Amino acid sequence: MLKLYYSPGACAMASHFALEEAGVEYELVKIDLRKGEQRTPEYLAINPAGVTPALATDQGVLTENLVIMTHVARASPDAGLTPEEPGFDFDRMQSFSGFLGASLHPAIGAVLFGKPPLEGEARAAALEKALGKYDVVEQHLLRGPWAMGDQYTVADGYLSVFTRWLRQADLLDKDRYPKLNAHLNLVQARPAVVRALHMEGLEPV
Amino acid sequence: MLKLYYSPGACAMASHFALEEAGVEYELVKIDLRKGEQRTPEYLAINPAGVTPALATDQGVLTENLVIMTHVARASPDAGLTPEEPGFDFDRMQSFSGFLGASLHPAIGAVLFGKPPLEGEARAAALEKALGKYDVVEQHLLRGPWAMGDQYTVADGYLSVFTRWLRQADLLDKDRYPKLNAHLNLVQARPAVVRALHMEGLEPV
Repeated sequence: MLKLYYSPGACAMASHFALEEAGVEYELVKIDLRKGEQRTPEYLAINPAGVTPALATDQGVLTENLVIMTHVARASPDAGLTPEEPGFDFDRMQSFSGFLGASLHPAIGAVLFGKPPLEGEARAAALEKALGKYDVVEQHLLRGPWAMGDQYTVADGYLSVFTRWLRQADLLDKDRYPKLNAHLNLVQARPAVVRALHMEGLEPV
Repeated sequence: MLKLYYSPGACAMASHFALEEAGVEYELVKIDLRKGEQRTPEYLAINPAGVTPALATDQGVLTENLVIMTHVARASPDAGLTPEEPGFDFDRMQSFSGFLGASLHPAIGAVLFGKPPLEGEARAAALEKALGKYDVVEQHLLRGPWAMGDQYTVADGYLSVFTRWLRQADLLDKDRYPKLNAHLNLVQARPAVVRALHMEGLEPV
């Protein structure tokens, strides 16, 4: 059976959403990042990079949300959680998720979770850089109503994690990010997403 | 025809290697990051994120090395540049490339290309963090001789970009990184890689 290693509210939530949307059987294992559980020998044996998510499968361990989400979606083709694969629209979705994972996440992560926390001018510069990544999504990448257009895909769950962080930090300016605001509300209205949030001890925000 | 937007020596080199390895027809368009050419309106119309690489195809534009490389590999199945797709080994390769793009690249990029440049204690902390990501590859992810084991895949070209940066900055300690050192030499001995380097005005290092 699939086993997802996650930390509540962290980016692994994207893979958790995909599992609930797909309706496949899985087990959750909590790795609390705030307690440093990602650095125990037991967890490093599963994911030497010491981050969540990791998905243990019968064949071995997968990491990175954009890989785990599509792996899960493939196990449940009837759920229609990705464009057809292989195909250009599938690749385009992965370009979008790749931008979230490699550009947006590091940028906002530095602001919200930096150790030691950024302060003063350094924080202001990092925040403006991060908000610029959200601008790219708002103005160019988010087609609406879903990220890829008419079809809800796993990339929508992924995006919602980062928009949620922004709203929780009181940084999701509705004038600057009207599409992102509306998108987060749509995602958080999905039953599968609400179920996953509850399993992590969380609520829509 | 495929058109790759790249900046010499930057991470787009990974996609360039894949195109040369695949032997497909393509055109190169130079976007010099040092001159800020990634922020011209012309380039932002192609990739609103203002980074390289971008691959223009007949169906639209793709971004992110791990997407472009596999898209290119798929166009040339006889070249055998990825494990069979779909399949677990393909996903495992993408987990590896995802780690490079989302963890290792931002970490070493902050050290080598930060604007303004990091100094003193901040640089030392960022460097040790980045070197820790290379440790994960050296000690756990790089199976040898190639990243995924016996088969050269597009992920090898991708890894070589970051090992090359480390060697150029005189940071590739042979005692700490024997496998990465040997791997870079192997990649840079491949005719397709040497051809791509020459097209970018570069040599093996």
